[in-house]
Amino acid sequence: MTAQTIDGTAVARKVREDVAKGVEELVARGGTAPGLATVLIGDDPASEVYVRNKRKLSVAAGMQDLHRHLPGDVDQATAAALIDELAADPAVSGILLQLPTPKHLDSEALLARIPAEKDVDGLTTVNAGLLAQGRPGLRPCTPSGVMVLLDEYDVPLKGAEAVVVGRSVLVGKPMAQLLLERHATVTICHSRTRDLAEVCRRADVLVVAAGIPGLVAADAVKPGAVVIDVGIHRTDDGLRGDVDTAAVAEVAGKITPVPGGVGPMTIAMLLANTLAAAKAQQGLED
Amino acid sequence: MTAQTIDGTAVARKVREDVAKGVEELVARGGTAPGLATVLIGDDPASEVYVRNKRKLSVAAGMQDLHRHLPGDVDQATAAALIDELAADPAVSGILLQLPTPKHLDSEALLARIPAEKDVDGLTTVNAGLLAQGRPGLRPCTPSGVMVLLDEYDVPLKGAEAVVVGRSVLVGKPMAQLLLERHATVTICHSRTRDLAEVCRRADVLVVAAGIPGLVAADAVKPGAVVIDVGIHRTDDGLRGDVDTAAVAEVAGKITPVPGGVGPMTIAMLLANTLAAAKAQQGLED
Repeated sequence: MTAQTIDGTAVARKVREDVAKGVEELVARGGTAPGLATVLIGDDPASEVYVRNKRKLSVAAGMQDLHRHLPGDVDQATAAALIDELAADPAVSGILLQLPTPKHLDSEALLARIPAEKDVDGLTTVNAGLLAQGRPGLRPCTPSGVMVLLDEYDVPLKGAEAVVVGRSVLVGKPMAQLLLERHATVTICHSRTRDLAEVCRRADVLVVAAGIPGLVAADAVKPGAVVIDVGIHRTDDGLRGDVDTAAVAEVAGKITPVPGGVGPMTIAMLLANTLAAAKAQQGLED
Repeated sequence: MTAQTIDGTAVARKVREDVAKGVEELVARGGTAPGLATVLIGDDPASEVYVRNKRKLSVAAGMQDLHRHLPGDVDQATAAALIDELAADPAVSGILLQLPTPKHLDSEALLARIPAEKDVDGLTTVNAGLLAQGRPGLRPCTPSGVMVLLDEYDVPLKGAEAVVVGRSVLVGKPMAQLLLERHATVTICHSRTRDLAEVCRRADVLVVAAGIPGLVAADAVKPGAVVIDVGIHRTDDGLRGDVDTAAVAEVAGKITPVPGGVGPMTIAMLLANTLAAAKAQQGLED
């Protein structure tokens, strides 16, 4: 058996096209194009690439690029004042603070200044609480991107056994909440899990976000399972994920590749969040 | 095999005694005795009993009883104004809005006015977010009471398989977070779970908070497992829980009775939260 490949590049493109249409409609209904304020502090080359990509794709979707750049030696008060300025600016629909920030800064304190309704990364405590309580709010981009992939590939979730490997605040924990919301029976595994392969083998839907290259091998996958690989690691053999893709593809029913699986979804969902935030702020929800 | 009974009445008494000592120490260190503002709206007899009990035990622990009672036909604005008054009052360490409120009131909007640091029930969105993000905050009383029971009976959690039946905002979801924080491999089940007994049989620690009398029978319990029954139902045969206690006690290693298991822990943890809130507000943490 060879698994069907879940084409995240294609799904992400579709999401971005839908967002672009949504932006057009918002403007046609008398609204303002969403404004995305990416905030980059310092000159980390990887962060610069990420931010450039987010800006480029937001502009391609018809949004206003409200990028702000602070020098790497900026003090906390100045960075905080910038967040406050963006929080108060009605042209700014969403604020994205690119992480990591330089070490001398308290990034959690900066994130805490982002109003929940402009928190398009879904990282603030209030948005985490809204998700935990099953209330509307902005969801973290990577796990909500996984949900879109599962839906696009018609993966049944109600009553399914879902296993999430990894319990990060960014991915694992919100992923579990989103799967639970859709009525899966959800198990969360992590480094202290006794027999990881045994637990993973129960999964109809296996989401791996452990940050360990090749952690999940074929013996951890039930035949026909859907395997979502959130990991991405730069190795001597190129990019790879948390899953031993070639071997697992012989067992799984559907699988995301790395790259081209979950990765492209994250920015697409950032754009979707920014559009949703703009609509809510302008009182122009569908 | 007959399971050991987990004596929640005794553990709750110990917690309350510890809280009473903590109150004495706080006052001896120049602080003020914690003040608990229970808010009862209307005259529901069950709610009156609960509130009276909370007041009585808070006074027994040396706290100030700052109870407030509003008539059942009070309007939203008046109820909101009372919450705001208590929020601003430095004598009030904790605010507990007794639920359910009369139907014409929006209880969620009232809860949302309680500042996170006075939310001794752990029900606000901010406290749910702090728990989800693994940060310090006030935790919901019932699941944190379960954690104390597990610790008092030396139940190993690291690497253990924990299964939570029920996904309520009040119990199931925070319960799963607390078990995950202690490094258990956690599964959340609910009404859509395909084979509940099969999933429950994996559990070293089984917490049942489904709200269905006798839902968990002996075939759902692994020999030697620890079974925590959060349910409480008034039936013709007296109080019973979500677990078929007599039959399960033949299989389990440890089990909570109903009544006298989880029940008494909830108020004890409310007092513990109120003390913790008072210390934090007075800048007199240990």
